[in-house]
Amino acid sequence: MDLAEKINNLLPGWIKGSRPEGGIVLSSRIRLARNLRDFPFPHHAGEKKLEEVIALVEKALEKPAPDKSRLRLVRLDAMDQLDRMVLLEKHLISPNLVKNPAHRGVVLRDDESVAIMINEEDHLRIQTMLSGLQLDKAWELADKYDDYLEGTLDYAFDENRGYLTACPTNVGTGLRVSVMVHLPALGMVDQVKKVLAALTHVGLNVRGVYGEGTESIGNLYQISNQVTLGHSEEDLVGKVVSLTRQVVEQEETARQALLNESRMQLENKVYRAYGLLTQSRLLTSNEAMHLLSDLLLGVETGLVPAVRPQAVKELFLLIRVAILQQLIGRELQPEERDYYRAMVIREHLN
Amino acid sequence: MDLAEKINNLLPGWIKGSRPEGGIVLSSRIRLARNLRDFPFPHHAGEKKLEEVIALVEKALEKPAPDKSRLRLVRLDAMDQLDRMVLLEKHLISPNLVKNPAHRGVVLRDDESVAIMINEEDHLRIQTMLSGLQLDKAWELADKYDDYLEGTLDYAFDENRGYLTACPTNVGTGLRVSVMVHLPALGMVDQVKKVLAALTHVGLNVRGVYGEGTESIGNLYQISNQVTLGHSEEDLVGKVVSLTRQVVEQEETARQALLNESRMQLENKVYRAYGLLTQSRLLTSNEAMHLLSDLLLGVETGLVPAVRPQAVKELFLLIRVAILQQLIGRELQPEERDYYRAMVIREHLN
Repeated sequence: MDLAEKINNLLPGWIKGSRPEGGIVLSSRIRLARNLRDFPFPHHAGEKKLEEVIALVEKALEKPAPDKSRLRLVRLDAMDQLDRMVLLEKHLISPNLVKNPAHRGVVLRDDESVAIMINEEDHLRIQTMLSGLQLDKAWELADKYDDYLEGTLDYAFDENRGYLTACPTNVGTGLRVSVMVHLPALGMVDQVKKVLAALTHVGLNVRGVYGEGTESIGNLYQISNQVTLGHSEEDLVGKVVSLTRQVVEQEETARQALLNESRMQLENKVYRAYGLLTQSRLLTSNEAMHLLSDLLLGVETGLVPAVRPQAVKELFLLIRVAILQQLIGRELQPEERDYYRAMVIREHLN
Repeated sequence: MDLAEKINNLLPGWIKGSRPEGGIVLSSRIRLARNLRDFPFPHHAGEKKLEEVIALVEKALEKPAPDKSRLRLVRLDAMDQLDRMVLLEKHLISPNLVKNPAHRGVVLRDDESVAIMINEEDHLRIQTMLSGLQLDKAWELADKYDDYLEGTLDYAFDENRGYLTACPTNVGTGLRVSVMVHLPALGMVDQVKKVLAALTHVGLNVRGVYGEGTESIGNLYQISNQVTLGHSEEDLVGKVVSLTRQVVEQEETARQALLNESRMQLENKVYRAYGLLTQSRLLTSNEAMHLLSDLLLGVETGLVPAVRPQAVKELFLLIRVAILQQLIGRELQPEERDYYRAMVIREHLN
């Protein structure tokens, strides 16, 4: 199997879809927190109870899945650490599940646009992920899987408070709505902090996707709702969609300003990134993320027509440490990673 | 006329020749200082005397030139400043002649491997330039043109002191023997200062070709003899050849050490240079020189087989300010130069 084939097998289905909103919104994600009635929350549950939860979910999956999708339940304690890390880097499971794999599982739809974590903070975390700004669709998909499971499982639900969750901040809808956005132009014109700070004042959370706290590597940010209680699911989704559209507009304005006022400098920047990405023999993760961000801006603004935007977006994932090792087929020493990272980038951009 | 054709027309003939000594010695140069008997040295001569010198040289050129070469005498005060700067950047005339063009001239052989300055510090400065380490050939060529002119002109010569020159340091043979060497590997392993300092202890001068004093941009150095008196021409040439060969050997040892001990880092460095040179849209002279130096090292060590070494060597010349403007066909504002420099480099490397 050659590298291109391996890459194709490794990429989650959601990343391959169409991308509305001009590539500024890389992905949309919905998460529903659900728990089973009369079961202690996972952090209070003993092994026996945790196993019972897994068994109940396994049983629920015997019913045909929505849209005749194929689902498989994977036990995290039956995988090796590298495979768990790959799921983490594909945004299908949480760090929590990687750290504590015993009696934990995840249900994956074959295209990986649906991933249901079992015995994370809550008994069930139904997650859907789609490319671009498609929160409505992602919400519909999550809702469908929620109904599917609720057809068999007995959820912990309270008339007044809604769905009960292990952490009070999730009580109510149990809904987390989020998007991953790429804001390189706002970064270049030093506006990104201002724009993102404004979002936190209207009830959204913002954090860098990679990097510590609100710092971002590669200008990638995750925007999500803070409150899950007191609003309908549709309202929460609608709010994130409309505020994300505002961010998209601001990024587009910044891109247009760069094109109008310093086109040559921008062209220089994005082509330098292209030159380094296609020729370097060693690339650290940090440098690669910066360069991919520059290149994606160049591709999305039409300055670098030779490169498929999809390829760059995919590389944000493919260069992660575990995915990279999965691609190469063995564990890599830290000093080897920069070499193989550069190789994968070269191959994938050609 | 397209750019490639313009480049071909602009490049001096000597640069296109074969290159002995593995590309470490970029060029060999001989200069003979000669003066006419009974004429004051140029800095003491009035306009009338200077014009008489030019007229005498013009007359001497009526005799068929060695090897039936075509020679032309160009008056510097009949050229515009840009054309004078181009001759300077091609190493055919000195800064002195650019600054004081009145009553000055240069005789050029059509392939520009011979350039005879008139009324520089001395009445005549016979210069020959060849690619690679070919000092013997360059000396033969200079000697031939010296004989050719001496056949008609009456040189100021003293039985005891040899050829008389305006500056006492040139008295004797009037000979300056020099090579331009490219020492990137010695630079990388921090040995270049040591190696070059050793040369000054055995009577050679060393200076950076571009840049101030002994600092070099692009790892290019000029090595030449200090003394012109008390040795035969052949001895002086032989001494520079043999010491240059030692430098070449040291550079080759350093290259081999880099290949053996840090091949991947070296490969990374030279391919990064290649990526930036072929993709940047803006390149300052300094950055371009550094990158061309890295790339040339990569090409000469076989790491970058796709690039012709000759093309890189030519670019050291083509990106100089005046030559660049000549290529583009008009005067360039400082901020435009980086753009056109990057363009010429991209075109010439493809």
